[in-house]
Amino acid sequence: MDKSSCPTNLQINTMARPLSEALTSMPGLSGETAPDYVILFRPDPSSRQRTAAQLERLVRRIVDVGMRVKCEVGDNSAVLVMVRCPTSKLQSEAYTSRVKDWLAGIRIAAPVEETKDSISAEPMTPAERLRLVHAILTIPAAEGGVGITPNVGEWDLVASIFPIHDPVFGQSWLAAWSKRGIISDSSLTILKDNFGEKVAFLFAFTQVYFLFLGVPAVVGVIAHFFLPQYSIIYSLVLGSWSIVFVEMWRRKETNLAVRWGVHGCAKLEHRRAAFNGDKTVTDPYTGEDVPVFPVGKRILRQLLSVPIGFVAAITLAAAIMSIVATEILINEVYDGPGKNVLIYLPTVLFSTVVPFLSKSYRSASKKVTMFENHETDSSYEQSFTNKIFALNMLTSYMSLFITAYVYLPFGDLIVPKLDFLNLFQTSTKFTEKATGAGPTFQINSGRLVNQMRYMSITNNLVNFALELVVPFITKLIFNEAKHLRSKYRRAPARPTLERRGTVEEMTLNRVKEEAALDEYEIYGDYAEIVIQFGFVVLFSPVWPLAPVCFLINNWVELRSDAAKLCVGYRRPVPERADSIGPWVEHLAFVSWLGSITTSSLISIFRTGAHPRDASILGTLGIVLFAENLWLGTRFVVRHILKAVPPQGQRQLDGEKYKVRTEYLRQLIGEQAASAGDKKLGEAAAQEEDMGAFWRMDSGVEGVLQRAKGCMVSENKKTA
Amino acid sequence: MDKSSCPTNLQINTMARPLSEALTSMPGLSGETAPDYVILFRPDPSSRQRTAAQLERLVRRIVDVGMRVKCEVGDNSAVLVMVRCPTSKLQSEAYTSRVKDWLAGIRIAAPVEETKDSISAEPMTPAERLRLVHAILTIPAAEGGVGITPNVGEWDLVASIFPIHDPVFGQSWLAAWSKRGIISDSSLTILKDNFGEKVAFLFAFTQVYFLFLGVPAVVGVIAHFFLPQYSIIYSLVLGSWSIVFVEMWRRKETNLAVRWGVHGCAKLEHRRAAFNGDKTVTDPYTGEDVPVFPVGKRILRQLLSVPIGFVAAITLAAAIMSIVATEILINEVYDGPGKNVLIYLPTVLFSTVVPFLSKSYRSASKKVTMFENHETDSSYEQSFTNKIFALNMLTSYMSLFITAYVYLPFGDLIVPKLDFLNLFQTSTKFTEKATGAGPTFQINSGRLVNQMRYMSITNNLVNFALELVVPFITKLIFNEAKHLRSKYRRAPARPTLERRGTVEEMTLNRVKEEAALDEYEIYGDYAEIVIQFGFVVLFSPVWPLAPVCFLINNWVELRSDAAKLCVGYRRPVPERADSIGPWVEHLAFVSWLGSITTSSLISIFRTGAHPRDASILGTLGIVLFAENLWLGTRFVVRHILKAVPPQGQRQLDGEKYKVRTEYLRQLIGEQAASAGDKKLGEAAAQEEDMGAFWRMDSGVEGVLQRAKGCMVSENKKTA
Repeated sequence: MDKSSCPTNLQINTMARPLSEALTSMPGLSGETAPDYVILFRPDPSSRQRTAAQLERLVRRIVDVGMRVKCEVGDNSAVLVMVRCPTSKLQSEAYTSRVKDWLAGIRIAAPVEETKDSISAEPMTPAERLRLVHAILTIPAAEGGVGITPNVGEWDLVASIFPIHDPVFGQSWLAAWSKRGIISDSSLTILKDNFGEKVAFLFAFTQVYFLFLGVPAVVGVIAHFFLPQYSIIYSLVLGSWSIVFVEMWRRKETNLAVRWGVHGCAKLEHRRAAFNGDKTVTDPYTGEDVPVFPVGKRILRQLLSVPIGFVAAITLAAAIMSIVATEILINEVYDGPGKNVLIYLPTVLFSTVVPFLSKSYRSASKKVTMFENHETDSSYEQSFTNKIFALNMLTSYMSLFITAYVYLPFGDLIVPKLDFLNLFQTSTKFTEKATGAGPTFQINSGRLVNQMRYMSITNNLVNFALELVVPFITKLIFNEAKHLRSKYRRAPARPTLERRGTVEEMTLNRVKEEAALDEYEIYGDYAEIVIQFGFVVLFSPVWPLAPVCFLINNWVELRSDAAKLCVGYRRPVPERADSIGPWVEHLAFVSWLGSITTSSLISIFRTGAHPRDASILGTLGIVLFAENLWLGTRFVVRHILKAVPPQGQRQLDGEKYKVRTEYLRQLIGEQAASAGDKKLGEAAAQEEDMGAFWRMDSGVEGVLQRAKGCMVSENKKTA
Repeated sequence: MDKSSCPTNLQINTMARPLSEALTSMPGLSGETAPDYVILFRPDPSSRQRTAAQLERLVRRIVDVGMRVKCEVGDNSAVLVMVRCPTSKLQSEAYTSRVKDWLAGIRIAAPVEETKDSISAEPMTPAERLRLVHAILTIPAAEGGVGITPNVGEWDLVASIFPIHDPVFGQSWLAAWSKRGIISDSSLTILKDNFGEKVAFLFAFTQVYFLFLGVPAVVGVIAHFFLPQYSIIYSLVLGSWSIVFVEMWRRKETNLAVRWGVHGCAKLEHRRAAFNGDKTVTDPYTGEDVPVFPVGKRILRQLLSVPIGFVAAITLAAAIMSIVATEILINEVYDGPGKNVLIYLPTVLFSTVVPFLSKSYRSASKKVTMFENHETDSSYEQSFTNKIFALNMLTSYMSLFITAYVYLPFGDLIVPKLDFLNLFQTSTKFTEKATGAGPTFQINSGRLVNQMRYMSITNNLVNFALELVVPFITKLIFNEAKHLRSKYRRAPARPTLERRGTVEEMTLNRVKEEAALDEYEIYGDYAEIVIQFGFVVLFSPVWPLAPVCFLINNWVELRSDAAKLCVGYRRPVPERADSIGPWVEHLAFVSWLGSITTSSLISIFRTGAHPRDASILGTLGIVLFAENLWLGTRFVVRHILKAVPPQGQRQLDGEKYKVRTEYLRQLIGEQAASAGDKKLGEAAAQEEDMGAFWRMDSGVEGVLQRAKGCMVSENKKTA
């Protein structure tokens, strides 16, 4: 195998040279021995025969398409089917893929004619390699692939397919990243080359958001110390900032997609294996037979999510409201026996009931989205993400909404009536208090600020712990347990390894370790940022220090996300993407919602009087004004940004121009490239017979004389 | 000259064959004799020498670029410089233009290699011919053109440049059109081939709007007879209709642009002669030196229109308000002497003051837009159109807004105080009335409906008269006067013609007639439709019969516009366009505004009680709800439409695919077109040495045995 075509080496060379030396000293981790993919096969304990047949079919098919296979015993009686694709086969696959990209207009320049030249001119990145191998493993057998569909149909015993991490790359990349303040575009490109565009877009987005957050952070600190709470100035800055951020990100997105050569890559997406066409139609342009599913039918099916979402939202909202009510009762009203213990009840309820409901909603959403019969993964994901994001919004913001719009304005009316079952015997308390001199119930007016503080500080620390520390401890305990178990079982438990050298052993250990990890879900990381953006845009006028807390959190988050990606989870299958997908629309939605919440919060709470004293008319007027101000500002921002086309667009146009000029030169020679010989044309024009009327027998001078004649005769007339 | 390259003949052949015969019997009107363009040259009465020098320069330059010239005496001492471009020159120009289109990505397919083949494969349309000739006449001398800039600098005596109508085409086209109910797409293409895409888009838009108007027309008739005034159902239908119309038109626009091969043609627009770059920069992609003007500076300059627009709007609004107040006083309060005469005062005021103010505003806008230093005509036009549309909105809707939101709710309070100068001696009237038993002043509650009726019926009739009948009469009178004058002056006045044959005489007469016509301004026709759309969307719940009146009007309008274009005005210079430009955004704006007006009108007037009794809170709430309903509906409509990519987009993608496949086949042969020989790659893959770890020495069977071994050992463990 040619050393230059080894993707791991290539990558390391461009990044941190000393580490490439370390590579040779760790033979088990070398790119050449490591499998491209591991197929986790779980034998059916009830039927040994079925297991053997499916395993044999799997191995035979993989060998048939020209790949190498190795089987090993994994943990929990699983079989680890390790696959590696010969580079020569991949080169032809890469070439095919590049030609297809170019046919679809994703690549501007045609690939070099010869396969080998094309690959050496533009070497395969590890991500490209893994993406292509994954495609071979998953596209239907009829199209030349293996056609594995994990957990479905004839592959029900295949639990998952996952690539193996490149620990050398991971370590050097994490090291390089942790030293820098911000992530450079070239660093993002290295990330893209190893994990694919979809993951790289997450980091690019997190980074841009991190930088942009500096603005509300600084303004927020100033507002906190020098401006009144619910500052109008701060809110105006915040609203404009959110608009500019969303619109600027759209540009950045286009630029990155063009730079990474994936602009419009959704056009070439594979059809989902789960897609069922109603009928087959011949595409009039490409001449291919394609299964189609009527758009109207899909839209009808999508309508189904309206009632389901409605019921789910009401259930969830009711649950959260009850928990919040319980919390208020226990914290602020109850002071009977066992309060020390009861005080934890709401937290327990929240962390059991809400996740349970969320999970049910999630699985219902998945079913509905499957039923919508999407043709591509990106369309499916968009639909599913929309549903899940609605859920996330509800669980994240609901309690703040309740505090702002129910508890603070109407708490003194509602709370005394809350304990209608008299579980906490509050009625007697109220009566007692009422007979006394003090007020029956005192609203905790700092509740909103406290909640925002909790969300900006405590919550981040908890998340950090859950994301990094807990998995670490779990892994530690798990490994210890395994160690104990293997000690108990002694040597016979690992009979195959003893016979092998260290290379095999190290590889197998690594594969087993990674098989034990969870799958990386990019969704959660996006949701975290967008929900955080929501806290800033929707509620930060309550406590303007929130952005600066989030800023600090995000600096850590960016790095911990990187560690999560390289160490904490299985390596994700590299996917292409030319944007962050539906998230940008969610950002825009949150930004719009912010115009409504901030303006209403200002109207209700700014005066410091009882919130119920705020005029509803005034609030409605302010909200109407703020929403239209938001619409107007966005219009202006878009207008201004449109005046400067994004770098990426200009680059795209420029490249197209170059390619076409080149083509023209090749196809019809230099003379024609300068577009028609003008001199030749003019000579012919001089001689052309245009009939008597236009014949200039007396030449130019004749015409001029006639022209002067026209003037003379006219002058005479006017004289 | 080759007969097949005569554009007029070509066109007629595709349309109405019998008419092509008529052509030969009218030699003076034949396409071969007719000039392409006429340059109207106005001698400087103060300096004969300057006039002669400029005229000579003009003629010499035109002859230099290879065109034929003829000078004739025009009316009012003007010189008519007639120009015709030899077809052979034009062919090379057309070829250059097509190659440029292709380089910019406007054309998908590269033009055929040889000029002649290219032109015969895809003949020049009359519009293309005229567009190219106009380009030669106007692009700077340095770039190979004549560089005429009418009325400016060295060409200050050139009053205008205009092409000559093709009366045979015009008559046959008008005849064909008037017989049909609707205009087919192929009929639009013929229009495009003769007048250019910009004009064709106007007719396409008018037609689509006409068809769409059917919906509110039908629903409106039903609403008028079966639903209450200010019907909520009608308003909801209306709002959704307006959203769907705008979004559907966007699709239609793309489809037409793709079909006409002008999608993205703005990319190739010539730089405006009036554009001044701050500095010259080399384009990094095309390598051309281009003058640039900083975007920030232009945006700053654009900010200038904010105060100017503000002052203008206030002045105009104040003027209209005063006129409306006067009208109300005279019509509804005053009943003293001279009322018969005074009643016409507001109309006189409106038709003198408002046009005067509009004209001042228009010329100020022109100056501001010039100062904004736009780089292309379309950018200039967009900016100017925005300004003028704001003016049109104000003059058209102001009086309805006053009636709805000022007169009806507050009239009884304001009107008695209006005549503070006591010009109409109303104070005594009011006192008299007040002392009597009746109410002091009775609001005319039907005023809004009356105004809508006037706008939908009377106004249309007046416009029709102004547009068609008046110009006809003017022309008649003008011709009669000219006839009388020439009779009085006798033969010597036209010495040149007597010496010529009929062909020349007929041509010259036609040129003179057309020089006497006004220039066609497409702006007015667009404004008319968009303003009408506004009446429907903003106010038709007041009187739901309005749409059906407009529908009838538009049927006539479409045809009268066609007549106007072919007969009433000078032939416009054919321009390319890939959309209706800024108008679609104006439609969207009006549609949005409609959500606010209709909802507030319903809230204020629906109950039938005094408008002032409507709760402001309720109205604000309803408006807030309606606006967000509008935003939500548009979101849904766009979402649904996005699910079905427009025909044009698919066609574009398909064509790109075809062209690229073709290119691939040509460039690297059939074998590579099927993208890399897979068999070859697989054979190589089988032999590739991948190191000891992946060597499958015992073949597939060995691997299978090992695989079964993994299962067995695991089964034993679990057993």
